Amino acid sequence: MSSTANVPEKGTPLSTPANLLTDVPLPAAAIFEAPLAHNLAWMQRFADDHGAKLAPHGKTTMAPKLFKRQIEAGAWGITLATAVQTVAAHAHGVDRVLMVNQLVGRPNMALIADAIAAGLEYYCVIDGIENVRDLGAFFAARGLTLHVLIELGIDGGRCGCRTASQVDALVAAIAEQPALALVGIEGYEGMIGGGDEVAAVRAYGERLVDTVRTLQASGLLKRQAPIVTASGSKWFDLIAEAFDLAELREHYTPVLRPGCYVVHDHKLYAGAMDQIKARDPNLEGALQPALEVFAHVQSLPEPGLAIIALGKRDIGHEPDLPLPLRLYPASATSGAASSAPVAAVDVSAWRTTHIMDQHVFLQIPENAEIAVGDVIAFGTSHPCLTFDKWRRMLLVDDTLDVRDVLETHF
Amino acid sequence: MSSTANVPEKGTPLSTPANLLTDVPLPAAAIFEAPLAHNLAWMQRFADDHGAKLAPHGKTTMAPKLFKRQIEAGAWGITLATAVQTVAAHAHGVDRVLMVNQLVGRPNMALIADAIAAGLEYYCVIDGIENVRDLGAFFAARGLTLHVLIELGIDGGRCGCRTASQVDALVAAIAEQPALALVGIEGYEGMIGGGDEVAAVRAYGERLVDTVRTLQASGLLKRQAPIVTASGSKWFDLIAEAFDLAELREHYTPVLRPGCYVVHDHKLYAGAMDQIKARDPNLEGALQPALEVFAHVQSLPEPGLAIIALGKRDIGHEPDLPLPLRLYPASATSGAASSAPVAAVDVSAWRTTHIMDQHVFLQIPENAEIAVGDVIAFGTSHPCLTFDKWRRMLLVDDTLDVRDVLETHF
Repeated sequence: MSSTANVPEKGTPLSTPANLLTDVPLPAAAIFEAPLAHNLAWMQRFADDHGAKLAPHGKTTMAPKLFKRQIEAGAWGITLATAVQTVAAHAHGVDRVLMVNQLVGRPNMALIADAIAAGLEYYCVIDGIENVRDLGAFFAARGLTLHVLIELGIDGGRCGCRTASQVDALVAAIAEQPALALVGIEGYEGMIGGGDEVAAVRAYGERLVDTVRTLQASGLLKRQAPIVTASGSKWFDLIAEAFDLAELREHYTPVLRPGCYVVHDHKLYAGAMDQIKARDPNLEGALQPALEVFAHVQSLPEPGLAIIALGKRDIGHEPDLPLPLRLYPASATSGAASSAPVAAVDVSAWRTTHIMDQHVFLQIPENAEIAVGDVIAFGTSHPCLTFDKWRRMLLVDDTLDVRDVLETHF
Repeated sequence: MSSTANVPEKGTPLSTPANLLTDVPLPAAAIFEAPLAHNLAWMQRFADDHGAKLAPHGKTTMAPKLFKRQIEAGAWGITLATAVQTVAAHAHGVDRVLMVNQLVGRPNMALIADAIAAGLEYYCVIDGIENVRDLGAFFAARGLTLHVLIELGIDGGRCGCRTASQVDALVAAIAEQPALALVGIEGYEGMIGGGDEVAAVRAYGERLVDTVRTLQASGLLKRQAPIVTASGSKWFDLIAEAFDLAELREHYTPVLRPGCYVVHDHKLYAGAMDQIKARDPNLEGALQPALEVFAHVQSLPEPGLAIIALGKRDIGHEPDLPLPLRLYPASATSGAASSAPVAAVDVSAWRTTHIMDQHVFLQIPENAEIAVGDVIAFGTSHPCLTFDKWRRMLLVDDTLDVRDVLETHF
């Protein structure tokens, strides 16, 4: 058997220029340029308006071209989850990474040490004494300084110190390691659930602020403007508010790090956006959904049932199954590329009832106008687990012409 | 920002030779050579013993080196789900593909036409008149013959003709298309559920056999030994039995196409194997689990809770959450590569309680011997949705030395 590099990647055009409906073997994932550009600007302005830096969570997309857009829009850095993600981003030109996880394992430490030695400005989080000792020894042996943030967690939550005494012990342990520089406090409010979540998130934001101020007052932080950071994509407004009320902007580096905002979504975060607008009716504009997956109607085996050539390998299905948005009749998909928007039918009343590895089951009206070969655009609820299904995604304009191909590095 | 090809892929060694515990940034996915080799031989012998051909479903792994091993073990061809998967396999030397889906959309048809023109022996399935007309027109225009199988489905199931009269209408429509050659019957028994499933699968197998015989008797099939094919990884024994009882081997090409068998699993298919053995106590040997994902203990934030640096981006979590198998103490992961098996602790009594994109929550005994930096090997329930999380997987031996790196093409 021979090997060849000339294999078409899933979801990429057969030729250029290309239109999504006529020149791409579906399924394919599309990001619409207009809402993408809007979201990039909107979130940067939101952070600016609250006196915070923006370090978008890059694990959402792992797409270097989107990292570049985020940084060009004003982002302070990129947040990432793992050492390999960090090195991939650095190799594509990202020079400041906030890794909001513990750095564990010698091969992972080696990757990060090499990147720091090559100029990467890097921060990771820490919540345990053993990890302090391991990192201290490893980076001392490499003759490098590792910048760390103490992670604050919540009872029953994920990582992070639960109590102030745990923080004190960790501060003392870090102080004993010359290779480690404690530069701030990190948290993730996304684990908060049950009861009055909004009040709990506000209180958590205050705890982050109080902790970083206490450490700063004690002279224990090794950075002129210590970092305090939190926020996923659901409650970023509450964290921004907590940082802003505390007037951190003068003497600290408050960092927000939502990730999903860049393409937003059609349900989970759409609902979160509604709540953010409800909390601040004066907030201008809103995030817009930018990511859709296009797939063919593959079979119409029974009245009321359409099987779509799309599956768990192509689109996220948590917390909600894929959401049908629009149908493009097959007749629109067989012609030449057009410069006018293609007429589509709203099918958002249809329902996905089941998904398998390579198939989606769609409940449709028995008299629905639909044919095998028609194309349906699907939205998602939560974008992260759609991005990682694609090595290449298509940046498209409103006419579905392909403007660029975005590589991902999962 | 610069771009570079020299980015370490997730889960690959930093150097060679490499040991999984000492030289690979975790998490990483490992396939053990011994059970892999066993499974390849076991399933081929099973098919041989039942007078059937084996066309393993390649969508499970999408790993060309595993396709090669399957073909070298005696497989008749590779089963695939999409046009892009087909072209990827063909580009890596697979020359016979059974695509058990409808071929829909002109760009997908163009990919397949090019592959057929380049020598690929290709079959797809068909269950609708519109698709017959589309394919007939497309392949006639290309001057190519497309080999098709009629798909039989079940009420409330996925694709496929529900009734004999639908089959008859489809046969007539295909006969009107000179570019289409009807060469057999295809089905998928995996949609059967509820009630006496075993009896229903047996009846479905008989329906496939009866249908292909009826068509053959009518002189409507354009292949000397027409194809009849079904079987996923759960009831392949029942389908094999139905084909074997019907003595198809002389005048037909009965094809089994399980996919998951190649690495088996630790729960779902382990249970299915038990049932297969119960149905045939004389069956020799059994499939063995060969796929595991290795990850670090990242944080021990509360008694009884370990956070693992592993998530939905790295391992399947359906129908069951990842299964902890063995723990390798950190002390075993910091030395040089060893030629002896590393001592590991059985932790299969521990339980995964939650999984996020990049984290697994593990419930452990409060007095568990565990430290940040320890490595835990996880098994899965259903392998397919672990393979597609990796662009590179590691073939390892019993000492966890890395023997090869397997690329995937999802």
